[in-house]
Amino acid sequence: MSVIVELSLFPLDKGLSVSAFVARAVGIIRASGLGCQLTPMGTCIEGEWDEVMAVVDKCFQALAQDSDRVYLTLKADWRRGRMHGLRAKTESVERALATVEEEL
Amino acid sequence: MSVIVELSLFPLDKGLSVSAFVARAVGIIRASGLGCQLTPMGTCIEGEWDEVMAVVDKCFQALAQDSDRVYLTLKADWRRGRMHGLRAKTESVERALATVEEEL
Amino acid sequence: MSVIVELSLFPLDKGLSVSAFVARAVGIIRASGLGCQLTPMGTCIEGEWDEVMAVVDKCFQALAQDSDRVYLTLKADWRRGRMHGLRAKTESVERALATVEEEL
Amino acid sequence: MSVIVELSLFPLDKGLSVSAFVARAVGIIRASGLGCQLTPMGTCIEGEWDEVMAVVDKCFQALAQDSDRVYLTLKADWRRGRMHGLRAKTESVERALATVEEEL
Repeated sequence: MSVIVELSLFPLDKGLSVSAFVARAVGIIRASGLGCQLTPMGTCIEGEWDEVMAVVDKCFQALAQDSDRVYLTLKADWRRGRMHGLRAKTESVERALATVEEEL
Repeated sequence: MSVIVELSLFPLDKGLSVSAFVARAVGIIRASGLGCQLTPMGTCIEGEWDEVMAVVDKCFQALAQDSDRVYLTLKADWRRGRMHGLRAKTESVERALATVEEEL
Repeated sequence: MSVIVELSLFPLDKGLSVSAFVARAVGIIRASGLGCQLTPMGTCIEGEWDEVMAVVDKCFQALAQDSDRVYLTLKADWRRGRMHGLRAKTESVERALATVEEEL
Repeated sequence: MSVIVELSLFPLDKGLSVSAFVARAVGIIRASGLGCQLTPMGTCIEGEWDEVMAVVDKCFQALAQDSDRVYLTLKADWRRGRMHGLRAKTESVERALATVEEEL
């Protein structure tokens, strides 16, 4: 689908261990049915812009409802007509890497 | 207002000079009536979450309509009940800085 | 100078009000003599890559010395041979915006 | 190790397909011997702050040597004394998620 968003968000008023809050967001993302991948620094979500941003909104609301301060960072790479981007992006880098190594 | 978002977005298929595209987004942000501040690396927008995200969406649509690839980064700092955040955030740092310098 | 970095960093274990910590970093940046601009969501620093990254390192060390967890985000736009980027970048957007508005 | 950095960087003057350039950076990261994980939106690197930042520097230099403009974003989460963070971070979210689901 056209856009891949990498999202990370956490409350700033809940101390050092924020896994439970992050898990709440990840649960929402998985329940959305969109393609996604949990990484050490955020979650990648793939879909059309509107549907991905609707999920980002739900994640934000879920954390804001019982926090006083939430920090969120988001990175989006939109490409017209892209398909299977989550897989395709890392695969094309791996392929390019294999070519580089062959040339050495 | 509760959230400050720093937004930057640009097309990846229009060559090195993307000022005209960035200007289109800044024009949309200013026309929204929300508080905003243009910085060297993005634009800060202040408002309620829903209204700021609606403006982010408009900016994205304006660039995606005639690009094939758009890259967007966004950083949000939401604090319940915050007022005049654009000014208050830099002022509180400047105040803290003055205190530090006095102590030296 | 060639690179503009937007830096934001704060401790995650010091509660909601992190201005004093941010101020420490801003003090280090200003003392570096590099061009800089405090914004509501971070600080922009301009210089050559090596000198800017040396300042980023100092800021990180200053916060890590008495925190147990530090979160840092950085965005860099490097352009060969750029001069006066902090001013030039916002000016070129303002100029493009003026052109857009004239055309309407 | 103490810090996990998520790094993404690409040239802005090489057209739409930047996999070959990203691959060059990923090759440098893997050759460093540090723990790392390629994700759809960047690469996570784990190590001590100094060694991770030295790798970031190498990646930047490798792209800047034959580009005129490079864009780089970096997110760092430093935690004193952390071990096996790349694995531990996603595992603690998965564990928290399992707990949430059990409670429903």
